[in-house]
Amino acid sequence: MKMNDYIELVNKKLDEYMQIEYPEDIFKSMKYSVTLPGKRLRPVMCLESCRVFGGNYEEAIPTACAIEMLHAQTLIHDDLPCMDNDDFRRGKLSNHKVFGEANAVLAGDALLTFAPQTILKYSKLPSDILVKIFAEYFQAAGAYGVIAGQVVDIESENGKVSGDKTKILEYIHTHKTADLFKLSLRTGAIIAGATEEQISIITEFGQKLGVAFQIADDILDEISTFEEMGKTLGKDKASGKLTYVTLYGLEDAKHKLTCLLTDCCDIINKLNVESEVFKDIISGIEKRVSQ
Amino acid sequence: MKMNDYIELVNKKLDEYMQIEYPEDIFKSMKYSVTLPGKRLRPVMCLESCRVFGGNYEEAIPTACAIEMLHAQTLIHDDLPCMDNDDFRRGKLSNHKVFGEANAVLAGDALLTFAPQTILKYSKLPSDILVKIFAEYFQAAGAYGVIAGQVVDIESENGKVSGDKTKILEYIHTHKTADLFKLSLRTGAIIAGATEEQISIITEFGQKLGVAFQIADDILDEISTFEEMGKTLGKDKASGKLTYVTLYGLEDAKHKLTCLLTDCCDIINKLNVESEVFKDIISGIEKRVSQ
Repeated sequence: MKMNDYIELVNKKLDEYMQIEYPEDIFKSMKYSVTLPGKRLRPVMCLESCRVFGGNYEEAIPTACAIEMLHAQTLIHDDLPCMDNDDFRRGKLSNHKVFGEANAVLAGDALLTFAPQTILKYSKLPSDILVKIFAEYFQAAGAYGVIAGQVVDIESENGKVSGDKTKILEYIHTHKTADLFKLSLRTGAIIAGATEEQISIITEFGQKLGVAFQIADDILDEISTFEEMGKTLGKDKASGKLTYVTLYGLEDAKHKLTCLLTDCCDIINKLNVESEVFKDIISGIEKRVSQ
Repeated sequence: MKMNDYIELVNKKLDEYMQIEYPEDIFKSMKYSVTLPGKRLRPVMCLESCRVFGGNYEEAIPTACAIEMLHAQTLIHDDLPCMDNDDFRRGKLSNHKVFGEANAVLAGDALLTFAPQTILKYSKLPSDILVKIFAEYFQAAGAYGVIAGQVVDIESENGKVSGDKTKILEYIHTHKTADLFKLSLRTGAIIAGATEEQISIITEFGQKLGVAFQIADDILDEISTFEEMGKTLGKDKASGKLTYVTLYGLEDAKHKLTCLLTDCCDIINKLNVESEVFKDIISGIEKRVSQ
């Protein structure tokens, strides 16, 4: 499978899994954010991880789509007025600008359980594998995962965090971004029946790729435009937010990004698997900031 | 076990399960709302349901506590300014009044996965039972459960719902309240290894008890005081909210409540189980409105 085949498949399945039921407003609101145009990086990583470890990627489709739903959940709540207060996301109005704040809060809540429910409904995986996948999902979605990252991110913005800024930034990037990358790769590997060692290596790949992705995002916030990114930019600098660019400057950020992406290539080589898709993802991140 | 023994046990376990980890603000915020003084009706029902169907209630403790966490999650988000905008809950300040709105949104989000994570961490149940419990949890917590109820409740308040008001009200009460009662009773029964028929009967009990509980709440909103209830009252009437009392008047509401509680007693008798605790819960609801 090529990158675009996976993306097309994920988009088709997301549309199929997310029927508009009663009460319509909540299902429409959930579907609106999940199906906004996007690169579908996380589900693609899940499917490809399953494939490279010898699994049938079709068995990972519900899990891959569930992770995209979880990702959309985090974006809906991050955009709320009481959080990052963003009116735009992926070039379209944020969920709360279309459906109202109450609905946006509830749509996010609903996605958090709709996602694993989708895995239950459409996966034909045995119970012990399902339990392993849920364990990964709960860990990444909650107070030990993306939420930990978001909390420390907000606190750093409010000047409420003291200590080593490098470590704090690494913590934020790890949890806000890398945790969902790792979730995608690990669940794909688990479905494929990968060994502990393989899972450990692909986790390292997800960690480095996630941090690289976030550094690229920090760089783009500095150098890109609204039209290119589809969301409000330049906010990091304006708000004094802790990012790789505000901490080390643009050049060091670019250097760090290159190092991480090189490490990512090395890990894929070490795994001794053929994956055009993983290479495409790595070079895609590189290209985003070098335009 | 008596009612108070269960409550004491649940409070002890909630305190034990909810350690304050890093980042502290989020764990403190989660624990604050979960451990606010309460009747612990839902966890008690879960434990008692397990016991009456021949199970060991101790095996149901993590699940019982997880449902209390889920209940707290719904209260935190319901109290938000963009929802019911309540400053008080259980006689104390609402979560967002203490920890801020962003943290309150995130604490609710975190509880939604922390709860099943608690089941995973502390239950020694086999995978197939765990999967069944998670299926029940996702169904009750999400867009087919409490959230459906909350959405239609908000829409009814905004005059956005048309159709048979009796049916709409039944829908709201069923999903906002009865769904978590049923979740508690059903998961307790599942852990005990109850038969399909037993689970079906206890579900009917939960449905009627849940609606009865909500009607009692509607009555109390009309006749009680802040001191007695620990939250802002009289808001239903002021906001033109659809409740049993605003729809049928106080006397009809009281009559309906009596009928439902009689049905609940009959169901317990039909099950042919000895349960002081279920009887205490039924008479407790009766007493709340007859003072």
